[in-house]
Amino acid sequence: MNQKTDPMSVALAEAHDAATRSEVPIGAVLVKDGTIVARAGNRTRELNDPTAHAEILVIREACHILDDERLTGCDLYVTLEPCTMCAAAISFARIRRLYYGARDIKGGGVENGARFFAQPTCHHAPEVYSGFQEQEVEVMLKEFFQTKRL
Amino acid sequence: MNQKTDPMSVALAEAHDAATRSEVPIGAVLVKDGTIVARAGNRTRELNDPTAHAEILVIREACHILDDERLTGCDLYVTLEPCTMCAAAISFARIRRLYYGARDIKGGGVENGARFFAQPTCHHAPEVYSGFQEQEVEVMLKEFFQTKRL
Repeated sequence: MNQKTDPMSVALAEAHDAATRSEVPIGAVLVKDGTIVARAGNRTRELNDPTAHAEILVIREACHILDDERLTGCDLYVTLEPCTMCAAAISFARIRRLYYGARDIKGGGVENGARFFAQPTCHHAPEVYSGFQEQEVEVMLKEFFQTKRL
Repeated sequence: MNQKTDPMSVALAEAHDAATRSEVPIGAVLVKDGTIVARAGNRTRELNDPTAHAEILVIREACHILDDERLTGCDLYVTLEPCTMCAAAISFARIRRLYYGARDIKGGGVENGARFFAQPTCHHAPEVYSGFQEQEVEVMLKEFFQTKRL
């Protein structure tokens, strides 16, 4: 994959697009066999749907495209540590690897809070890799919330 | 409300309907001001969507109907203890009260596993009431999984 199709760069572009729609800037990309199957940014406000996080949207779209409720062998790239809802959805979808950018101390559910993948009620945990383009993600979120407070 | 419109009885009817569709028999009902706004049973297989739990479906439908991403003042009735994904979605939707039937030791996220509402990353917790028609729920689930194993 070149820079343009690097999944985390695409996820970041989705996060930027989300910000322009006044959504919290988080983006996600679902990859299978080196190909992007689905990409999305947050759409909770646009859709009036508190579950319309970027991760949930790409999981639902990829399941629809692949005609399967399990995304075995698929990898998910997200700009921010998934929340607990999304971590559980990632587990249910049987995603193979999770790559994310910045940690989310306030709302994350992977290495913060519920740490869902380490719970006895978690029956599938992906491999987890974090710290990708962390600074860019953090600056984007900070700028977004500063603008909202004006 | 009479027996017919008692929300937990309606949730149980949704769970029974789910079983006839070969879905795990769990049902949910969303109530506002004493009126049922949305009702659903699990549809993960039918929709090829691992997030299509009964609770997620009623939250999404109610948000759509009420044109709001927050269900402030709304109460959710579910036949089984919500999983961690659904518990987090209930929190995001700002649901006022959660009533559920049986506990789910293996997959629950309210009084089992992640206990999401008690996490520091949970920013809204509903009032929780449980133990409604517990035996009926447990028998229905047991019979469903016994049939699946044949």
